[in-house]
Amino acid sequence: MNITPKVEEVLKESGIKEGFVLVNAMHITASVFINDDESGLHHDFEKWLEKLAPEKPHSQYRHNGAEDNADAHLKRQIMGRDVTVAITDGKLDFGPWEQIFYGEFDGMRDKRVLVKIIGE
Amino acid sequence: MNITPKVEEVLKESGIKEGFVLVNAMHITASVFINDDESGLHHDFEKWLEKLAPEKPHSQYRHNGAEDNADAHLKRQIMGRDVTVAITDGKLDFGPWEQIFYGEFDGMRDKRVLVKIIGE
Amino acid sequence: MNITPKVEEVLKESGIKEGFVLVNAMHITASVFINDDESGLHHDFEKWLEKLAPEKPHSQYRHNGAEDNADAHLKRQIMGRDVTVAITDGKLDFGPWEQIFYGEFDGMRDKRVLVKIIGE
Repeated sequence: MNITPKVEEVLKESGIKEGFVLVNAMHITASVFINDDESGLHHDFEKWLEKLAPEKPHSQYRHNGAEDNADAHLKRQIMGRDVTVAITDGKLDFGPWEQIFYGEFDGMRDKRVLVKIIGE
Repeated sequence: MNITPKVEEVLKESGIKEGFVLVNAMHITASVFINDDESGLHHDFEKWLEKLAPEKPHSQYRHNGAEDNADAHLKRQIMGRDVTVAITDGKLDFGPWEQIFYGEFDGMRDKRVLVKIIGE
Repeated sequence: MNITPKVEEVLKESGIKEGFVLVNAMHITASVFINDDESGLHHDFEKWLEKLAPEKPHSQYRHNGAEDNADAHLKRQIMGRDVTVAITDGKLDFGPWEQIFYGEFDGMRDKRVLVKIIGE
């Protein structure tokens, strides 16, 4: 899910011209990351994460007692919890194709993201 | 090792109400990361990291000349070096279950963490 | 590529004594990361990343339609996009052996890094 427009909206409302914005997932089975907005690539990410941290069998993880989402915690460590982006002239200071995404690896939760801006 | 109480103590002493706190490992074979404080999950992390970046045989890594901890450097890249957490109303602005951990993958060193706060 | 001297130069010019510096890759197939400046270790990183996210066969990734660099996007997620380093007394507040590196996994692009400093 591309959350760049929402982050830009919060930034605009803040009126901050120079500083940092921190964007982080509020769930420990989810990630905020920066990459390309290309659906083939997102499919590749999902398949690759499933290979590195397979969901099943659930019995391979000790965390899967009351819950069965240990793999989602592992996937989120690879993709990262948060990104910090520079703000220059009131805009997100991106390289080419950089967009901010929210990725949820458990899939049963409400999505929550924190956007915090410091600067002037 | 859950270092959240120590970070909260430093934050309280700083008197800062709005800003960012950066918490990073001072060793390149260690991580500071945010996840769940659940011992089963921590066991899963250890086993999974050992699968992705096995310690042995030592001969598989060129770094293992004078040292034998190449795998610890790799593990730390997956788990990450640092976290940045928003400070709101003088508190760490966490989602549910978020706690800050220090993970050491070499095991032979003193633990050192840097906590740096900016804001007002 | 060790970019620590360049970051130190920008920091010195800024005159900032206490704060944060954000260093991030401007390409989504590249990373900025902190680790040891040891050539054996860097060789180990390359070999390990190729094992976790093999470049070939290109056909294993859907992203490889117009481009053939899906693996570079995956590798960059493991190594990370950016680092935030504390500034104390006008210097990068490093632990032992910490150095900042730029790693490019696609290899066909100009290197671009953003260094942004906040503080006073």
